[in-house]
Amino acid sequence: MPPKDVSTLSRAAIKLFLNSFDTVLCDCDGVVWNLLNPIVGVKETLQTLRECGKKVHFVTNNSALGTKGIHDSLLEYDRQLQPTDVITPAQTIIKYLKEFNFNKEIYILGTSSMKEDFQDAGFKLAKTKQQQTADSMEVLQEFLVDDESVGAVVCDYDIHLSNLKMIRCAVFLRRPDVLFILGATDKKLFVGNKLALPGPHFYQAALAEVTGRTPMAFGKPSPNLHNYITRALNIKDPSRVLFVGDSIASDIRFGSACGFQTLLVFSGLAKLSDLKKIKNEQDTPNYYLDSFGDLCEIIKSRLEM
Amino acid sequence: MPPKDVSTLSRAAIKLFLNSFDTVLCDCDGVVWNLLNPIVGVKETLQTLRECGKKVHFVTNNSALGTKGIHDSLLEYDRQLQPTDVITPAQTIIKYLKEFNFNKEIYILGTSSMKEDFQDAGFKLAKTKQQQTADSMEVLQEFLVDDESVGAVVCDYDIHLSNLKMIRCAVFLRRPDVLFILGATDKKLFVGNKLALPGPHFYQAALAEVTGRTPMAFGKPSPNLHNYITRALNIKDPSRVLFVGDSIASDIRFGSACGFQTLLVFSGLAKLSDLKKIKNEQDTPNYYLDSFGDLCEIIKSRLEM
Repeated sequence: MPPKDVSTLSRAAIKLFLNSFDTVLCDCDGVVWNLLNPIVGVKETLQTLRECGKKVHFVTNNSALGTKGIHDSLLEYDRQLQPTDVITPAQTIIKYLKEFNFNKEIYILGTSSMKEDFQDAGFKLAKTKQQQTADSMEVLQEFLVDDESVGAVVCDYDIHLSNLKMIRCAVFLRRPDVLFILGATDKKLFVGNKLALPGPHFYQAALAEVTGRTPMAFGKPSPNLHNYITRALNIKDPSRVLFVGDSIASDIRFGSACGFQTLLVFSGLAKLSDLKKIKNEQDTPNYYLDSFGDLCEIIKSRLEM
Repeated sequence: MPPKDVSTLSRAAIKLFLNSFDTVLCDCDGVVWNLLNPIVGVKETLQTLRECGKKVHFVTNNSALGTKGIHDSLLEYDRQLQPTDVITPAQTIIKYLKEFNFNKEIYILGTSSMKEDFQDAGFKLAKTKQQQTADSMEVLQEFLVDDESVGAVVCDYDIHLSNLKMIRCAVFLRRPDVLFILGATDKKLFVGNKLALPGPHFYQAALAEVTGRTPMAFGKPSPNLHNYITRALNIKDPSRVLFVGDSIASDIRFGSACGFQTLLVFSGLAKLSDLKKIKNEQDTPNYYLDSFGDLCEIIKSRLEM
């Protein structure tokens, strides 16, 4: 089925659309905000969806703010938001580790906010060795010593990633019982429209290659996140969930794999012209719209609210 | 042609072998030494080759010691070595840049020894911004500012690679006139037999991907190094050069591409069993031998020297 432009739907079609889902899952970056600049109308859209009786949750791979930071930022858009309405890779990983009482230390490549998420959940983090600047073999030797108290390596985006940190990971991951866990797995991180920076994929892939290990991913579009969402939100009928995102590879592919309906918006990564380039059904959204912020006016005008 | 085991060659065949080349090009790591531990007999082999009238040069991707450091270390194996007998990516890149009087600043991901090679050659290096540890957007902003005095990015192995350094590279490489140059391009760096660490390939590939730029490589097995060697050593007939290396992907592939004869040794990366896994002619050495250090005794015993 070709995707439908929500802005051109008739009054009857909008009614059908609204009646076809109970739960809305929203990506944050590129849908709610861009680099924390609000996207116009999103606040009103979220409010209107709540008024229509929809449950609204947020699913983001962004770990820059931590789960609590994301929640605090989203409160400005959605006053009814509960802490459990925000789903991040950190949360999903924590839930996974708690299920089998994981009690070893965790070595994290990630933001300080992400590290706080794990500490707040009661986990002990492995200390990062003091960054060195000398080129000597002695420095390297010190980083090659294993530490048996470490039982998991978690890789998300680390703005302070260093080669020496990667060497620590490679040393830990030689033990097959050390868990190798990924959060966000982006290849590129965009700053504005033009500048792409290397995302966490590049060092995650390098670690997988040199260690011969296959990591478990917990961010979009991984099946682990699917399981978590289904259980945490008690989703019985996935077709009655609408997933809203700005990335085809991450959001739409994930939504389709979960059996959700999908809405692609063009306020972030994807452009309207990208729709023509899609080659498989899994990447084809059910609906598209310039901006999630436009949905409020469309609903109100069609339903004369 | 299947590769020949040099240790089983007859007296006549060894004579033919020795008469078939005038120049020997040797890799260093895994051929002359392993982690700077001498490989037994190599010193004697080099001396014997000199006595047989062969020219001997060393071609290494290793930039840990710098061109001068490599030369100093090799002097213990080969007393007749001249500084120009050592060929490194730094040297090849410097020669390339000098040919068109490159005079902008160079941003280097590499060892301090490599940086010294460039400074000694009269180039100005771009300053590395002070590494920051805060997670704030302000830190990132500062690293996103371009610096028009930088005209080239050189990526080799940098034990102190950081994400913020990569961001600097991505910012510079947005300008299409900024040269994007690679030295060594290893995927894995081995510490002993068991531990593989991420090599420079992972951040070189990430930078190529996010910038959309195609880098020029100057280490083995790149054609730029081929051109450099041909001109610097005034090689008229490549078939009269013997390339000795321990890596199939780097040394043998490079040697074959240059039209050299090739000798694979098993004192470093490659094992005898790897010979059976080779799928194409380019990767098949002409000769193989357990260790380059064994060649001395083979020559002496066959030729009754």
